[in-house]
Amino acid sequence: MIKGAYDGITVLDFTQGVAGPHATMLLALHGADVIKIEPPEGDWGRALGEIKGDHCAHSVAFNRGKRSIALDLKSADGKAVVNKVMAKANVVIESFRPGVISRLGFGYEDAKKVNPKVVYCSVSGFGQTGPYSKRPTVDGLIQAFSGMMVMNRLPDGTPWRQGMIAVDVTTGLYTFQALAPALMRQLRFGEGSYIDSSLMKAAAAYQGAKLMEWVFSNGTPPPLYMPAGSYKTANGYIMVSAMRPHHFKALFELIGRNDIANDPELQGHEARIRNAPRIIKALQETMPSKTTEEWIALLQPKEVFCERVNNYTDYLDHPHVKESGAIDWIEQDGFGRMPVANIPGLPPASQHEAQQHAPHTGENGADILKELGYSANEIDAIFARGGVQAPTILAKAAD
Amino acid sequence: MIKGAYDGITVLDFTQGVAGPHATMLLALHGADVIKIEPPEGDWGRALGEIKGDHCAHSVAFNRGKRSIALDLKSADGKAVVNKVMAKANVVIESFRPGVISRLGFGYEDAKKVNPKVVYCSVSGFGQTGPYSKRPTVDGLIQAFSGMMVMNRLPDGTPWRQGMIAVDVTTGLYTFQALAPALMRQLRFGEGSYIDSSLMKAAAAYQGAKLMEWVFSNGTPPPLYMPAGSYKTANGYIMVSAMRPHHFKALFELIGRNDIANDPELQGHEARIRNAPRIIKALQETMPSKTTEEWIALLQPKEVFCERVNNYTDYLDHPHVKESGAIDWIEQDGFGRMPVANIPGLPPASQHEAQQHAPHTGENGADILKELGYSANEIDAIFARGGVQAPTILAKAAD
Repeated sequence: MIKGAYDGITVLDFTQGVAGPHATMLLALHGADVIKIEPPEGDWGRALGEIKGDHCAHSVAFNRGKRSIALDLKSADGKAVVNKVMAKANVVIESFRPGVISRLGFGYEDAKKVNPKVVYCSVSGFGQTGPYSKRPTVDGLIQAFSGMMVMNRLPDGTPWRQGMIAVDVTTGLYTFQALAPALMRQLRFGEGSYIDSSLMKAAAAYQGAKLMEWVFSNGTPPPLYMPAGSYKTANGYIMVSAMRPHHFKALFELIGRNDIANDPELQGHEARIRNAPRIIKALQETMPSKTTEEWIALLQPKEVFCERVNNYTDYLDHPHVKESGAIDWIEQDGFGRMPVANIPGLPPASQHEAQQHAPHTGENGADILKELGYSANEIDAIFARGGVQAPTILAKAAD
Repeated sequence: MIKGAYDGITVLDFTQGVAGPHATMLLALHGADVIKIEPPEGDWGRALGEIKGDHCAHSVAFNRGKRSIALDLKSADGKAVVNKVMAKANVVIESFRPGVISRLGFGYEDAKKVNPKVVYCSVSGFGQTGPYSKRPTVDGLIQAFSGMMVMNRLPDGTPWRQGMIAVDVTTGLYTFQALAPALMRQLRFGEGSYIDSSLMKAAAAYQGAKLMEWVFSNGTPPPLYMPAGSYKTANGYIMVSAMRPHHFKALFELIGRNDIANDPELQGHEARIRNAPRIIKALQETMPSKTTEEWIALLQPKEVFCERVNNYTDYLDHPHVKESGAIDWIEQDGFGRMPVANIPGLPPASQHEAQQHAPHTGENGADILKELGYSANEIDAIFARGGVQAPTILAKAAD
């Protein structure tokens, strides 16, 4: 068993939803003890889409490997518990609307007083400063605000939103990208730091090259190559991509369209971009005449870039996906069997206990209190007062 | 000036394109000395879209903070130089087609012999093992293969490709996510490791929650809420998102559609999903009657989630983007002035020299050779033999 990079590292995690939880899940899967602080009713990210017990697909996907304690941040017991964790945490991370965490008494200034080397991270929609900082937002609104919907626009110009909470997931990756080096600085140099991560900044960084291209081309970035798109076949769709110059000729010869392959008006990159509608029309006419598999059998051996357009069932059932170990399956109790996309740099989920369970609301409350030095009697009293939620109540509620 | 997390860390970087270079750029911006090994003709990622000199927007965006040396990996001088860097590198990373780097003599086994604690990372399309491992691919084909195009499908079911090389950029983030903990393990425990990163695995991990949802819902994941989409206004598009239950009523009352707000057949989440076409039609009818700004002025104060659909010009010019410091501008020599989306956890580009320049092909060859212990005479001789390209030649070629 390899040692986890962050073994022995404690993370005090107030985040809810997807962006923050995604970042802290990666810390947890690389070994950190992530203590997820949830309100008694649970992280709102547990209710995205179809729900079973106290989980949805998103909350399982982005909370694996963590431990949960459910508490009321305004109660005396809740505050005392959080203060104990804050004093020893390497990382504190929160995703309240800017200003809220300081009013609760757990802001960066509060944390630094008891824990000078702390890495403190806030994850918000629009960042901690500027006129929109307190504006409420969600993934789709940042897709709109950041230019992402225009970048994904349809041929008729209609802006198009991605079919997943893409900005949230991306913000998780960028936030981890900020946290991992901050932990390295804490270890190497004894330096703490403050990270102001946001959906807005992550979305823009993700599109960083497109932003440059937009300015460079005065708002009209040319296609990288032509053709590159998906076309209907006899039984589905095929994606073709004529990246290298010789692919164009090979593609159209192989599909029996010598008229296009040898058309003097379609020679060279510029000419093809200019006459794109003719190229697209030819593919729309010809590709429905064979199945996707027949086309791939013709095109792949000549190294013309093409691929079947798969749905997730096709992906999960694909022999390469299976043989290369890209997917494992986990059984989340109370939820059922689900596929896990194995993450680069981590052990496969099937060989890595941390990846096999996302906690129920407050599941680990008693253990966490015990580790903080509370006696069994004190723990009973705390649960009875209700500032920290007893896990048994919640386990029943999930039945 | 904060210390870089990876100050003193050396990265031997054979990667080209976008995925690998994005990961190593993040190492560089957090302080690592990334030595980019390029073929004499330069990284092929320098020619994505419009080119100026030896750069395109993508090569500037994803190679900042690195140093470049251009050499022939099959020449005696080239091999000798790479071997010297390999012996001292903390990280070696490559993105050749599986098998190629070992034939060149710089595979993981070769690296471990001279550098037992090395973190070695391969970035490929389909991973290092399995039947598709040697299949050539590009971003668009993995969008097709991984199910991403179906996830982004249009209302009529047509699979839709994102307007950027989304999988490449994401693979850079997942690869960094693997490298940063691997460096932590190297430092804390003296352990080296091998990372098999791929576009396929990164794309699936990115869509991990959707994969779970797909299986959980037998291939018919329901929308998270209704409505959530963009609608034409008098002067553009607005994105509205009725995330919380009370948003629905507030939205339709405020736009003057009490018929929808109070329709008994549209009460509750399930009913709205079932009758989505009526809800969408009402918005399509009503939203063109005012400008985006007029709608936002009506809806935002009542906390109905809505946002203007911006293009990149709108984004770059937005007062919040400017005041919160989300964007800086850099002047890349020979290329021009370009916006940089500031990355969470890094200093703003304007205050961080590493972010202000992406190297030209072979720009740092002489310095790198000198640091490796070659004398001025030896460096001249190496350049004369041509196994390592003299930077002056390339600077001229870029004119």
